[in-house]
Amino acid sequence: MREARRMIVRMAELEIDPDRIDAYTALLSEEIEASVRLEPGVLFLFAVSVKGSPNKVRVIEGYADQAAYDAHLTTPHFLKYKTQTADMVRSLRLVETDPITLKAKDQISN
Amino acid sequence: MREARRMIVRMAELEIDPDRIDAYTALLSEEIEASVRLEPGVLFLFAVSVKGSPNKVRVIEGYADQAAYDAHLTTPHFLKYKTQTADMVRSLRLVETDPITLKAKDQISN
Repeated sequence: MREARRMIVRMAELEIDPDRIDAYTALLSEEIEASVRLEPGVLFLFAVSVKGSPNKVRVIEGYADQAAYDAHLTTPHFLKYKTQTADMVRSLRLVETDPITLKAKDQISN
Repeated sequence: MREARRMIVRMAELEIDPDRIDAYTALLSEEIEASVRLEPGVLFLFAVSVKGSPNKVRVIEGYADQAAYDAHLTTPHFLKYKTQTADMVRSLRLVETDPITLKAKDQISN
């Protein structure tokens, strides 16, 4: 059981340059894989696109606590993603949330 | 490794009657807990509210495939949730998605 009150869950809603979707998703997938594998405090990162609008990307992000999130922002893999995708991202909206209930099977990665 | 191309991920964006938030979240939490525990094809259900707007609820839903989702809709716990919350939900928008990359630690439930 995680301590829900310390867990941070947020959603990033991005609009990507339609001509750069493949390059963007490759960099995003690499960053997600590295973050969950290497960072103890990154609980999950789920990236999806809105059906019919492949350039509208949403990332649902879960961190153990604020310190885990702050640490994530300084990692080489996050900084590489941020730098290399900067000119592919047309807009970024961050939705901060309060967790209600999060339940998952033990193995859910795709 | 899940078969990403068969996995279904969608987001429900709900607006709840502000006077019924506690009753609504209790029913939603009960439904989420039962679904992930009892249904092999329900991979995860994450419910959050938008910070500062506790009546704006988002549920991120993951199912193994279409059959798992169809089965979920016929379960007693889902039908109980749907019936008992019907007059608490002011609006419901479903966002269908295509999964890009989903990675998670083995234990992420709160």
